[in-house]
Amino acid sequence: MFISLEGIDGSGKSTQARLLADHLESLGHTVLRTREPGGSPGAEAIRALLVEGDPGRWSPVTELLLYNAARRDNLERRIEPALARGDWVVTDRWTDSTRVYQSTRGGDRASVDALQDLVIGREPDLTIVVDMDPAAALARGLARPGQEDRFEQLGVEFQRTVRDGYAALVKDYPDRVRIVDGDADEETVAARIQALLP
Amino acid sequence: MFISLEGIDGSGKSTQARLLADHLESLGHTVLRTREPGGSPGAEAIRALLVEGDPGRWSPVTELLLYNAARRDNLERRIEPALARGDWVVTDRWTDSTRVYQSTRGGDRASVDALQDLVIGREPDLTIVVDMDPAAALARGLARPGQEDRFEQLGVEFQRTVRDGYAALVKDYPDRVRIVDGDADEETVAARIQALLP
Repeated sequence: MFISLEGIDGSGKSTQARLLADHLESLGHTVLRTREPGGSPGAEAIRALLVEGDPGRWSPVTELLLYNAARRDNLERRIEPALARGDWVVTDRWTDSTRVYQSTRGGDRASVDALQDLVIGREPDLTIVVDMDPAAALARGLARPGQEDRFEQLGVEFQRTVRDGYAALVKDYPDRVRIVDGDADEETVAARIQALLP
Repeated sequence: MFISLEGIDGSGKSTQARLLADHLESLGHTVLRTREPGGSPGAEAIRALLVEGDPGRWSPVTELLLYNAARRDNLERRIEPALARGDWVVTDRWTDSTRVYQSTRGGDRASVDALQDLVIGREPDLTIVVDMDPAAALARGLARPGQEDRFEQLGVEFQRTVRDGYAALVKDYPDRVRIVDGDADEETVAARIQALLP
């Protein structure tokens, strides 16, 4: 089973991805833990291009292509083989992040979906959106070293738009996207997520 | 005017791109000289991912995405601004290279064309294929330092298939693709190319 965790910066989705993978392993499953962009060695090399240097280094379309290149590499080299072995895969972000963030930044959602259909294909079996009020996430995000600048630059209004984007995803993909209230202690949120497992 | 030079390895297309740009400048035009993959700083960074490391580092689809990311960056940052200023652009390879090489390597030509339509759009106004018998190109290619391994690895049969692919392009794009016999001294080939200019 292929599960993605999504949410705004500071929502706790990375922590919840780890806790979910721990839980699945405690049940005896073999779990591939991965993240976006990155995962495979090739995708991590592409990630370096995406996260380093001037934030305006890439146009929205070029950035979209680089995200898809990293996603395809990770999919082919690590995720598909793991799923073929019957392992579980838990990823911190997948194509939904691109759908939400590109649209928020004025990008073209149709191009995101066209590329997904053309070169990726695979959607998660279950997508968990860790929902959080941006003001609360801001307080949490600021506590995490190295994250302050990014959150501050993008701003709370931006994060609010992203949150609305995630809420809208449920309408587009009602069969696989679930929203979980992330405004509680880690263990409580983890239990809410575990309750969604089949 | 946007002109691309195409041809198999060792055909002399890079030399002819330089001679064509020299000629256009001698006529008083401002010329942007560029190459694929690469050109802009971002595209050169992506080029490093493509040309360094194990030749099997990227799958055909991931490689296609990286080529398109480099092409888009070079297009947006350098080529479109130059064309908007009324300058000429001479590029050593463009999308036709991807069409011919991906198909030769068993890739999916439909994906190449779909990506071109989705994220690039721009085709050259004139494409000059420097045609050369692979055996003659092999002799020439071997004389160029650093190129021996690549040509040898791919083999003369591979280059023959690429040559046939270029010949087929004329049928797909009769309005813009011209074949020039490259089996002559540099100046003679350059004169043949100049005769194709409007």
